[in-house]
Amino acid sequence: MENTIRFYFDFSSPYAYFAAHEIEALAARVNRPVAWMPFLLGAAFKHTNMRAGTDLGYRYDYMKRDWYRLARRAALPFRLPQTFPFAAIAPARATMWAEKTHGPDRAKTLALALFDAAFGDGRQIDQAAETAAVAGAAGFDADAVTAGIADPGIKAALKTQVEEGIADGVFGSPMLLVDGEPFWGYDRLPMAEEWARSDGW
Amino acid sequence: MENTIRFYFDFSSPYAYFAAHEIEALAARVNRPVAWMPFLLGAAFKHTNMRAGTDLGYRYDYMKRDWYRLARRAALPFRLPQTFPFAAIAPARATMWAEKTHGPDRAKTLALALFDAAFGDGRQIDQAAETAAVAGAAGFDADAVTAGIADPGIKAALKTQVEEGIADGVFGSPMLLVDGEPFWGYDRLPMAEEWARSDGW
Repeated sequence: MENTIRFYFDFSSPYAYFAAHEIEALAARVNRPVAWMPFLLGAAFKHTNMRAGTDLGYRYDYMKRDWYRLARRAALPFRLPQTFPFAAIAPARATMWAEKTHGPDRAKTLALALFDAAFGDGRQIDQAAETAAVAGAAGFDADAVTAGIADPGIKAALKTQVEEGIADGVFGSPMLLVDGEPFWGYDRLPMAEEWARSDGW
Repeated sequence: MENTIRFYFDFSSPYAYFAAHEIEALAARVNRPVAWMPFLLGAAFKHTNMRAGTDLGYRYDYMKRDWYRLARRAALPFRLPQTFPFAAIAPARATMWAEKTHGPDRAKTLALALFDAAFGDGRQIDQAAETAAVAGAAGFDADAVTAGIADPGIKAALKTQVEEGIADGVFGSPMLLVDGEPFWGYDRLPMAEEWARSDGW
């Protein structure tokens, strides 16, 4: 739909985990649909000189502190996976596959289950097997998910989605596009909502 | 005072310009004083692998777009100086000097005048002469400001303030410390206010 909010996220992003738990309620308040768009930050970082949190010296101490306090504020569990940041390709492809085969609502259920596994439980979803296990617990056929992650068509679709995101200026996670207007960061959700409600300012 | 909010900022930061226009009202709402703390981002960037906006590829396009829309939202004028980012040493020292010689209230008046010159009018405040001219228009003795910028005691005080900020985890601009709890970014002012109001969460 024309007024769809595009919600870009990388599964390795704790800020996207928080946003994933709020985006549908936000969109409902402004009466718009949301398209959940798995993204790969690493591809954007190459163009923007950005680095993963763990490469940011004492700024990473701030980020960790921030995640735990945001979790308390949102009343969500929070636990970092042992390997962090991690490659988000398997969960991103699984979500693309779920959308193609089961539709957007089931894909959102899967994406949220994957985020909860990664940052609620600290599980290692960068492995296809773990992603498939999470999907299985969420009601999907785990073998089909594993096949979907390896499907050339799904691989190509994710690659295209990441490239188109970069062309549209996506560089962070979460990042919202509201009528093409970009909002970067979990802390920008209120401004994005304000924008959607008022047709800009 | 013990419950003082520490407001760290680099004069070359548009986000700090927006925050400077809101911080006193925020602090008044939570009944706390604010200490305005000039800071030099470049010194922190060395420790955190961070880069100036202009080094961030297409992310810089987002930042520029963001500054202009935030200015519209805050009903503030916005204009980037021709040289940007710029060295914030002269305005930072001038503000430190004003605080030492005229007290914190007059120093805040000067800091706000400098921010307005840089980002409201797009003037080049990285030069001591321009900083002194802005201070002169704000009611200070321009020659005394020029001398203050060159004063070894002021130079040392700024250096110490930056080093202590880094030791306390300051890496961005604006950055607030509320009872030691750090909040980075103009978009975090609402959360900082919430924290100050509720003694954390």
